Amino acid sequence: MRYKTKIVSMLFLLVAFLVMVAGTALSQDSLPSWNEGPAKKAIIEFVQATTDKSSPKFVPPEVRIATFDQDGTTWVEQPMYTQVMYCLERVAGLAKENPEMKDVEPFKTVLSGNREAMAKLTMKDLEKILAATLTGMTVDEFGVQVKDWLAAAKHPRFKRPYTELVYQPMLEVMKLFRANGYKTYFVTGGGQDFVRVYSEQFYGIPPEQVVGTAGGAKYGYDKSGKPMLTKEPRLPLNDDKAGKLEGIHLIIGRRPYAAFGNSIGDKQMLEYTQAGEGARLMMLVYHDDDKREYGYGPKSKVGTFTDALMAQAKKNGWTVISMKNDWKRIFAWEQ
Amino acid sequence: MRYKTKIVSMLFLLVAFLVMVAGTALSQDSLPSWNEGPAKKAIIEFVQATTDKSSPKFVPPEVRIATFDQDGTTWVEQPMYTQVMYCLERVAGLAKENPEMKDVEPFKTVLSGNREAMAKLTMKDLEKILAATLTGMTVDEFGVQVKDWLAAAKHPRFKRPYTELVYQPMLEVMKLFRANGYKTYFVTGGGQDFVRVYSEQFYGIPPEQVVGTAGGAKYGYDKSGKPMLTKEPRLPLNDDKAGKLEGIHLIIGRRPYAAFGNSIGDKQMLEYTQAGEGARLMMLVYHDDDKREYGYGPKSKVGTFTDALMAQAKKNGWTVISMKNDWKRIFAWEQ
Repeated sequence: MRYKTKIVSMLFLLVAFLVMVAGTALSQDSLPSWNEGPAKKAIIEFVQATTDKSSPKFVPPEVRIATFDQDGTTWVEQPMYTQVMYCLERVAGLAKENPEMKDVEPFKTVLSGNREAMAKLTMKDLEKILAATLTGMTVDEFGVQVKDWLAAAKHPRFKRPYTELVYQPMLEVMKLFRANGYKTYFVTGGGQDFVRVYSEQFYGIPPEQVVGTAGGAKYGYDKSGKPMLTKEPRLPLNDDKAGKLEGIHLIIGRRPYAAFGNSIGDKQMLEYTQAGEGARLMMLVYHDDDKREYGYGPKSKVGTFTDALMAQAKKNGWTVISMKNDWKRIFAWEQ
Repeated sequence: MRYKTKIVSMLFLLVAFLVMVAGTALSQDSLPSWNEGPAKKAIIEFVQATTDKSSPKFVPPEVRIATFDQDGTTWVEQPMYTQVMYCLERVAGLAKENPEMKDVEPFKTVLSGNREAMAKLTMKDLEKILAATLTGMTVDEFGVQVKDWLAAAKHPRFKRPYTELVYQPMLEVMKLFRANGYKTYFVTGGGQDFVRVYSEQFYGIPPEQVVGTAGGAKYGYDKSGKPMLTKEPRLPLNDDKAGKLEGIHLIIGRRPYAAFGNSIGDKQMLEYTQAGEGARLMMLVYHDDDKREYGYGPKSKVGTFTDALMAQAKKNGWTVISMKNDWKRIFAWEQ
């Protein structure tokens, strides 16, 4: 056999082999934690249609953007947002470094652990707690502080690290989208710098694909003249509700083709996604499983899902995901 | 031959084939528009060292970030920034749609074309012109307006579209970085929305990798109830000088490994890049070629390159690129 012919027949065999492997991958269930039903079907059909070149719904690879809310959409947000838990627990760490804080309100109340007193903290008190725990340090120092806390902190009900409270079905969705050429982004009301600390390791979402509420970062020099960036109590981006679109425009600059949320904070993101041309996928996670997770809706202050939002979802054809019925399991560690 | 053995030997041959192909690619000159010299050498050595797994300077693919200033670093910025030319020329378009503008200052002066009078416009006048031409429309409408202008506008000296005034040597650098797993970002004092219109087509940089001065975007609904984003005269991000680090932190969230600039507006970006651990590349384009392009330095208001910046570059080991000596050709259309 001549060399050229050999190469050609080799490549032919290789292509046949790759087609065989690819065939196997496609026939496997990429959403094993989902029960068969309209939600799973909507996801699979959307991904297939938008990546099939012969489909009228085909979306070119470079504009394939899928956005995911975080709290309550891809991990547990009850009884309180993880970042708020961080801020409250971080006060103890700060008080160790600055003992005089122990006698100053609102830190004194937080350190007392008295829940009744803590519930009475005012908006101004909370702002002081956020400013003390989220600003004043360099961006690198903040990353270390969050990482250390995540390694040690446990969720009050599940007694597990917060990073183990990621929803397995949503991880599968993210992986399915990425395997089909979609860039997956977080678009969260939570702090951008906070989420970036763990998003790559636990969700496969790199820091540059996290859109979140962002404080200012001031450029300066330390005592030795080394440049540094310090977190400041300004808010260039309040990434919630209508602000999520400002965040998407600022950081992505493209309209998403798919958007996932779970509360009134995601309503505008889903509306704007749907207003684009061609195929679009809008989904809302609904927390109706108080056995395995939590059941909450319009009355919850965390992750509010109003009746009006449910009505809008129905009217607009958004798919509501029932955690109880659509998810075979919620967490990776479940039996 | 058994099937398994066949596959293995086939894969072995394939790997040998790929290594051969890769060897050919590496031996080709990836920077053909650069003269041999310290600048070209610095780029090649940096890319080789940071992508060689056996090198102590190896940088993992996920953190490979290279940032490029735009005006004066990757295209012509004289006699005036392209976006300012856009704003001034756009006034005529606006006046057609709103004839009453013709009698209102500062638009009247701009429409007169009287350069002497235009040079006397105050900061407040300029702000009015920027607000009128860059805000008030939806983000989609703005994209169309810029695209239309770019297709028609010509540079006063070169009599060519602005998008043909891209520096070919810098395009080659961007391609070399991308071919080696680097994400290339613009980090520009220019308007983020403006640069995004053409960055993908002319530089291979997608919108989500453009960091620039950003105005606000307000979410709302048009008369038919369709969601829209309107450009507002706020400035969440002033992406110049120290602000470039705020922009990099906000949109990328990682420290660059390589940074390219050409003026005092890039000083802090280069400092912060260099302050990271491991191998870093800092480069400044110096405009010393008034025959083929422009010669300017400390006295130019556009793209100021002070003596202090030159001294800092020497002291810190930043590489200064001489357009005259380091670039074989500046534009793709040159002979």
